[in-house]
Amino acid sequence: MQAAQRLSNVATHLARSVMTDSALSHGPKELQNKGLVLLLAQTPNGNKPVYLLEELKALGKIPDYTFVPVSFGKNEQKSDWFEAVNPNGRIPALLDNREGKKPIKVWESASILLYLAKTYDTDATFHFKDEDLQTELLNWIFFIQGGVGPMQGQANHFFRYAPEKIEYGIKRYQDETRRLYQIYEDHLNGTKDGEKKEWLVGGKYTIADMCTQPWVRMAMWAGVELEKFPALAAWVERIEKRPATQAALKVPEQDMLSKIKDDPEYADQLAKKSSDWIMKGNQAKK
Amino acid sequence: MQAAQRLSNVATHLARSVMTDSALSHGPKELQNKGLVLLLAQTPNGNKPVYLLEELKALGKIPDYTFVPVSFGKNEQKSDWFEAVNPNGRIPALLDNREGKKPIKVWESASILLYLAKTYDTDATFHFKDEDLQTELLNWIFFIQGGVGPMQGQANHFFRYAPEKIEYGIKRYQDETRRLYQIYEDHLNGTKDGEKKEWLVGGKYTIADMCTQPWVRMAMWAGVELEKFPALAAWVERIEKRPATQAALKVPEQDMLSKIKDDPEYADQLAKKSSDWIMKGNQAKK
Repeated sequence: MQAAQRLSNVATHLARSVMTDSALSHGPKELQNKGLVLLLAQTPNGNKPVYLLEELKALGKIPDYTFVPVSFGKNEQKSDWFEAVNPNGRIPALLDNREGKKPIKVWESASILLYLAKTYDTDATFHFKDEDLQTELLNWIFFIQGGVGPMQGQANHFFRYAPEKIEYGIKRYQDETRRLYQIYEDHLNGTKDGEKKEWLVGGKYTIADMCTQPWVRMAMWAGVELEKFPALAAWVERIEKRPATQAALKVPEQDMLSKIKDDPEYADQLAKKSSDWIMKGNQAKK
Repeated sequence: MQAAQRLSNVATHLARSVMTDSALSHGPKELQNKGLVLLLAQTPNGNKPVYLLEELKALGKIPDYTFVPVSFGKNEQKSDWFEAVNPNGRIPALLDNREGKKPIKVWESASILLYLAKTYDTDATFHFKDEDLQTELLNWIFFIQGGVGPMQGQANHFFRYAPEKIEYGIKRYQDETRRLYQIYEDHLNGTKDGEKKEWLVGGKYTIADMCTQPWVRMAMWAGVELEKFPALAAWVERIEKRPATQAALKVPEQDMLSKIKDDPEYADQLAKKSSDWIMKGNQAKK
């Protein structure tokens, strides 16, 4: 009886594994490309891994990578093929179709950065071999992932997308975003340790900076005044000017911020369009 | 002139370093204890590192650790001595007064877990030596840190603490918490891969489970029905029953959930008290 149950479990497992793989094969054919395949859209979380991929490419540490644009309008992030890579149905997600090894699925933007750093930046240009510096790097990476990321995201929601104007929500999340920005500002200014800093950790440009800048550069979208944080604003520009960043901000399409600067009306159209799919997505959940 | 400027920078740096250290020396004297010193309060984020510390202690991997309770009522998490360890002014934070090395400061609950795992769980009982499994572990750790943690936290805020009853906020964050719970439920049930699982990653109890369970066990506090997610509820109980978990839930004091079960009126008193210091803290920010 137990043996029969085990056999049945194995059969189910095989059937389902085939199902998951076949979900992938029903997606865009680029998912089958050799090497790194990044599923993304042009958002702050989508930018993060591209910042690193472009740096690695510029240094010849990876030959190239494939990107697969994910359409929120078509709800593709909830498709079977997307969720076969990331069960959370959120961009970005990475598939590494490695030579001689099973493909690996990496999701959550910071997890992707750490995977790419460990695997392809083996001399630690953008992270650290020193254990203590690597710990400090992780402090700052978790801080953005649980702090500015989700909180500025909520400020965006209440300030730009929510169908009702709820002052309490707008103020709560803008204030929290400002509180968090002040921590970066004090850190870069060396308010507590007396050390002015160009970068968040260890005196060089790292994946902690790459994790953080794509959100901070979009402060205006959340209604937060970046110019009130001059050291932080200067750090944003320092990263913005890097050729790899400029290349990254065109993947998978021209980034929102430069489009808005060219055409102020674009902001309103975009807020409206985004609100539509966000509210539709919220309804689809139930 | 440049030399004078550099000298002045060095002087400032020395003065400020002394300041930071002296900030620590003005805190509780336990901050000077040898070995691991955890600054925390009895909250889900506070629980996470204690889950691991108690497991490591039970296995003899660490001799013991010091905990320093941080009083929200007295706003101690914003004191100079606390912010000398964690610039974000949030619990938990860890100071490791190591033998023969400079003390190290670790903050953000998940960063603390990874530091403790790397440093004291060197045979990887609660994490992995296998690189691919470690990547999967990080997927799930970043998922809780950017997902259930902040979102269930917002559900708590709107459901329990906010001075106005804002239905939109309550519904938004409870719904998002439920959506995230369903992902864990499907994962544990093997809905997609046909593999029923006892643990989140790699078939054993790891720091990914420790990062997640302290939030999920508190579902009721956010007004979310854990019983609607039976595989997840069973996983919560599996972890809850571990002797190390039971020990952890008494640090720094008896946990909220068991107090609420003993005394239903305690929930209302607590919500009122917490709301007071949360709103006070929000005002103090400006």
